[in-house]
Amino acid sequence: MRRKPPSKRAKVHFEPDNVDIIVEQGENLLEAAIEAGVHINASCGGAGVCGTCKMLIKQGEVESIRTEKISEAEYEQGVRQACQSRAITDLVVDIPVESRLETAVLDRERTGGFQPSQALATGWRFRPPVSKLFVELPPPTLEDNISDLSRLLRGLKQQYNLDNVSVDFSVVKKLAKILRDGDWKVTATTLVPEAGAQTNGGQGQILINIEPGDTRKRHFSLAFDIGTTGIRGQLLDLNRGKVQAEGLDYNGQISYGEDVISRIAYSQKPNGLKKLQRAVVATINGIIGKLLAESKVKVADVAHITVAGNTTMIQLFLGLDPKYLRLAPYTPTVNTVPLVRATSLGLEVAEHANVYALPSVASYVGADIVSGILGSGVYQRKKLTLYMDIGTNGEIVIGHSDWMVTASCSAGPAFEGGGVKHGMLAADGAIEGFDINPSNFEPVITTIGGVKPKGICGSGLINITAGLLEAGVIGQNGRFNTHLPTKRIREGRDGYEYVLAWAPESQTGKDIVITKVDIDNLIRAKAAMYAGCNTLANSVGISCSDLEQVIIAGAFGSNIDIEKSITIGLLPDIPRDRFIFIGNGSLLGARLTSFSTDILDDGERVAKMMTNFELSVNGNFMDNYTASLFLPHPNAEEFPSVYKRLGKLQK
Amino acid sequence: MRRKPPSKRAKVHFEPDNVDIIVEQGENLLEAAIEAGVHINASCGGAGVCGTCKMLIKQGEVESIRTEKISEAEYEQGVRQACQSRAITDLVVDIPVESRLETAVLDRERTGGFQPSQALATGWRFRPPVSKLFVELPPPTLEDNISDLSRLLRGLKQQYNLDNVSVDFSVVKKLAKILRDGDWKVTATTLVPEAGAQTNGGQGQILINIEPGDTRKRHFSLAFDIGTTGIRGQLLDLNRGKVQAEGLDYNGQISYGEDVISRIAYSQKPNGLKKLQRAVVATINGIIGKLLAESKVKVADVAHITVAGNTTMIQLFLGLDPKYLRLAPYTPTVNTVPLVRATSLGLEVAEHANVYALPSVASYVGADIVSGILGSGVYQRKKLTLYMDIGTNGEIVIGHSDWMVTASCSAGPAFEGGGVKHGMLAADGAIEGFDINPSNFEPVITTIGGVKPKGICGSGLINITAGLLEAGVIGQNGRFNTHLPTKRIREGRDGYEYVLAWAPESQTGKDIVITKVDIDNLIRAKAAMYAGCNTLANSVGISCSDLEQVIIAGAFGSNIDIEKSITIGLLPDIPRDRFIFIGNGSLLGARLTSFSTDILDDGERVAKMMTNFELSVNGNFMDNYTASLFLPHPNAEEFPSVYKRLGKLQK
Repeated sequence: MRRKPPSKRAKVHFEPDNVDIIVEQGENLLEAAIEAGVHINASCGGAGVCGTCKMLIKQGEVESIRTEKISEAEYEQGVRQACQSRAITDLVVDIPVESRLETAVLDRERTGGFQPSQALATGWRFRPPVSKLFVELPPPTLEDNISDLSRLLRGLKQQYNLDNVSVDFSVVKKLAKILRDGDWKVTATTLVPEAGAQTNGGQGQILINIEPGDTRKRHFSLAFDIGTTGIRGQLLDLNRGKVQAEGLDYNGQISYGEDVISRIAYSQKPNGLKKLQRAVVATINGIIGKLLAESKVKVADVAHITVAGNTTMIQLFLGLDPKYLRLAPYTPTVNTVPLVRATSLGLEVAEHANVYALPSVASYVGADIVSGILGSGVYQRKKLTLYMDIGTNGEIVIGHSDWMVTASCSAGPAFEGGGVKHGMLAADGAIEGFDINPSNFEPVITTIGGVKPKGICGSGLINITAGLLEAGVIGQNGRFNTHLPTKRIREGRDGYEYVLAWAPESQTGKDIVITKVDIDNLIRAKAAMYAGCNTLANSVGISCSDLEQVIIAGAFGSNIDIEKSITIGLLPDIPRDRFIFIGNGSLLGARLTSFSTDILDDGERVAKMMTNFELSVNGNFMDNYTASLFLPHPNAEEFPSVYKRLGKLQK
Repeated sequence: MRRKPPSKRAKVHFEPDNVDIIVEQGENLLEAAIEAGVHINASCGGAGVCGTCKMLIKQGEVESIRTEKISEAEYEQGVRQACQSRAITDLVVDIPVESRLETAVLDRERTGGFQPSQALATGWRFRPPVSKLFVELPPPTLEDNISDLSRLLRGLKQQYNLDNVSVDFSVVKKLAKILRDGDWKVTATTLVPEAGAQTNGGQGQILINIEPGDTRKRHFSLAFDIGTTGIRGQLLDLNRGKVQAEGLDYNGQISYGEDVISRIAYSQKPNGLKKLQRAVVATINGIIGKLLAESKVKVADVAHITVAGNTTMIQLFLGLDPKYLRLAPYTPTVNTVPLVRATSLGLEVAEHANVYALPSVASYVGADIVSGILGSGVYQRKKLTLYMDIGTNGEIVIGHSDWMVTASCSAGPAFEGGGVKHGMLAADGAIEGFDINPSNFEPVITTIGGVKPKGICGSGLINITAGLLEAGVIGQNGRFNTHLPTKRIREGRDGYEYVLAWAPESQTGKDIVITKVDIDNLIRAKAAMYAGCNTLANSVGISCSDLEQVIIAGAFGSNIDIEKSITIGLLPDIPRDRFIFIGNGSLLGARLTSFSTDILDDGERVAKMMTNFELSVNGNFMDNYTASLFLPHPNAEEFPSVYKRLGKLQK
């Protein structure tokens, strides 16, 4: 390739984003993509060593160095590393799914705060633990009449270099018919059973399914975050690395108790464990049904299910007695759960689908937090990070790639709309945005989906409480100022309340209110989270101002307002640009594990890296908690910016 | 150790055989054991290199060289190689189970012919694929509250160096309770899932069960030969390497057809496959029930089941449609069957028991023959061997450790008492021994178990036919000589017959007879076997007289009479000392596979070594078969000794 004079220009067209940019001839293509706002993974920062920035040159001429990250066959096809390539002529460049995924996984997440893509695991390759492999086999003849299974395995070995495959007996059962129905053209589904298995040269995979013909286009998995209050699920397209559909519902176990402790208590009643297991499975089945119907995906096309959740939720889902989680010395039955056939748990999926549960750390530090740390990549970076998973079970991690300490605190269900008079999950119709006119105390509300209000989600509760505090409708102790000239403050059945929406404006046809009890529940919840963070930070000898980054995860709202969370004292009052909100971290990690065995491999390591810190036996924590039952906090020095603003507003 | 003058003598007491022998001081202990008739394995013939002749010196002094086959720890305990040790004083010597097993596996077999122990696989170590491991775990504390499963796996790693264990989810389900019920002392059952897995440094085992306390003493498996006509099972004690009990029954599928072809035909009817599968499982469940009751073993103590049988029987047992076994190009669904959970097939055993089916070669060369070759060690030796498995499906192998060819021929059920008026399996009450007084044609019969006669087993049918031929009661064409002066020859409903026992002497209260039809069935069966052997020998360019060894296997009788089998033309007329009868070879191999993963590892290799030879498309075979429908054979040169004797007798 001849180098042309550098004064000339070239147009680069990026697919599938359909973005054009005009660059100088000779411009580096990774830089061109960044300029054009096209995301390409580049874990090594353009040094050419990670091989994650592959792209396909569809038209035009580039100057490029081939490193060992590109095979000769790939090079022939036109695959190049963006960071090692310069534009010579006009180009049409396709960015393959593997090079785009790190942000693609966020596509359907509603995220807020600053630059959530900075809080994502990087460097992983798109390698789902389940694969579909299409094989064309020579039909048997008298000269070549080996068994059907030997023929299939020979084909997989020849065409995919797959060796030492274990075979699930269910495949053998239908093999003869399917090979013949498919006229010896079939699609095999294989599963990497556990962390580390695939790195072992493709060995140790399990053949879990066989279908006639080429079914590679229909290849899906499910990821679930099993929360104490809410369950969120996503249907994942394993060809495109995309979220195909998502859904959520209250965990059906709520009828048996609001928090982990009451669930464990219920599980000890006759048939209690069975009822709880059935309840959570029924909720999940409901979500699966909706996800499949909505996206017109058949149940047979879902080959895998990844779940995360706290240790109690995972044990109840698996039908494991959670009794010893609550009894000293607090032992879970299992941290690394073996693969389980999904139908054996009652899930309404195909027989070949297996459940992979992310590993947990301890009784009170579950797979949800491991999942969040995996998904957010905290374990990959040197930045001193506070990771908070805000939910019924609040979980906190402080650390970086060298060490991590973790603690959990029971915040109660307020963040998910539980124990709140008009509380609801963060779904369409939930009041989330809240502003108040300080002159007449009239509210301006916005809802998820922009529809008529139906209730209040967790993030809405935070925003409303902060707004009421700033407007002086409630005091720092959470009590209503009953002397204000507005009909919206009134006495209801549960004491004083503020009317957010009058009956004619609501979906329910009834007034939607926030009560004193709701506000007290939120204060207790935020106090537990904040006290937990403070206690854990002190226990490792740091203060919140030392934190270089605060990653906030939680399923409780679509878009947490950092400023308002600081106003109520949920988050520490430190510079706002250190906060990143990544949405449901547990679900994020479960999704990434469905997309990449690299993440699967890291899961065990992350679980082992974490040191658990028991808050319940820590006197400091109780002191911190009691002191935090105030908006934002009785110690003005801890919340200087809030006190400054409140002071101004009250003038 | 000081050497004493050689004139002195020493008494050696061998346990557990409880045998004494007086030897010269300095006598080699392997030789002493041979003199005393105590079997000790010695694969290398006493050269000191195989390490199979270990024994424990319990009292007295020996002079011994320690080779690397004895670890220092073993040496400390008093373990020595018999072949490397000399008696110095009086001794008490214990021969451990591993050193005794090669013949121990024959203990409960009724065998005949010459030196059956010469036709046994050698050099294997006693290493059952299922192991019971007792562990004492430290109870959890607040400082050490890892999960129950992690605690168990840590204990197994520390105490047994077991690593990379997969865990069956059913173990997780009951783990918490059992650890506490057993006060942290539990017995784990592990399984080597497939050939080669254990050689890989103990990796790749599956944890399949957990029990409170120390249950190592209760450790059993089952071995089955699933025959077309009869099913034989053995309960194996995996601590002692012994057959604990054995049982047999007719295969319940007989109601749906006598041979493999009619079974396959039936399987194509609506629900046919399901009915056949249920029938064979019901038979096996019946045998299991009896074996367990008889030996007072609990169903929970059976951890594994090994099965062998022809390809059709194995496929029907597994519920795999056998259709394509019969349709060109004759493909089985599977040769190497993945592990199957026994309860999933309907077997009434514990949930953790898995079924391992021995590998097969082709549609007509099944796991029964692979099992027999494994058990008899044909693949280990250089001797040119004919291996015959005489049964409803006759199977033949010719070869040695370098090559093997194999063929099968449908002999029909006569050898197992099928299609025979008073035929029965080789159980108590079966007429087996037969002599006839040539002057008055009165019979002298003996039965298995020495009880009143009930019917005729396969070996009895051979002995009776040979006897009737030699006495001139029947001719070489099998027809009765109706002119003899005896009431025992008479015309019955099915033509002429000979009365073996009158009604008052029989268990059934009816006359027991052998009919012309019975004899014709036997002639067809023996013709198929003999023609098969001849055709296969010719096809590899040898004649029967080239054979150095003929190993006869078959489940059809307890003690086949070689001489009489030659008389009727079932076996070739070659020197008698080349014949060895090993009983049920298929069951023998299944049993050895239950005792040793070495044999398990060899199974795959043996199956791959065998070249299948299709008799049904061989014109030579049909000619040979037609020519063989005569007692012993129309070609006198092929049976010189028989013709000589018959000639003498008829004078």
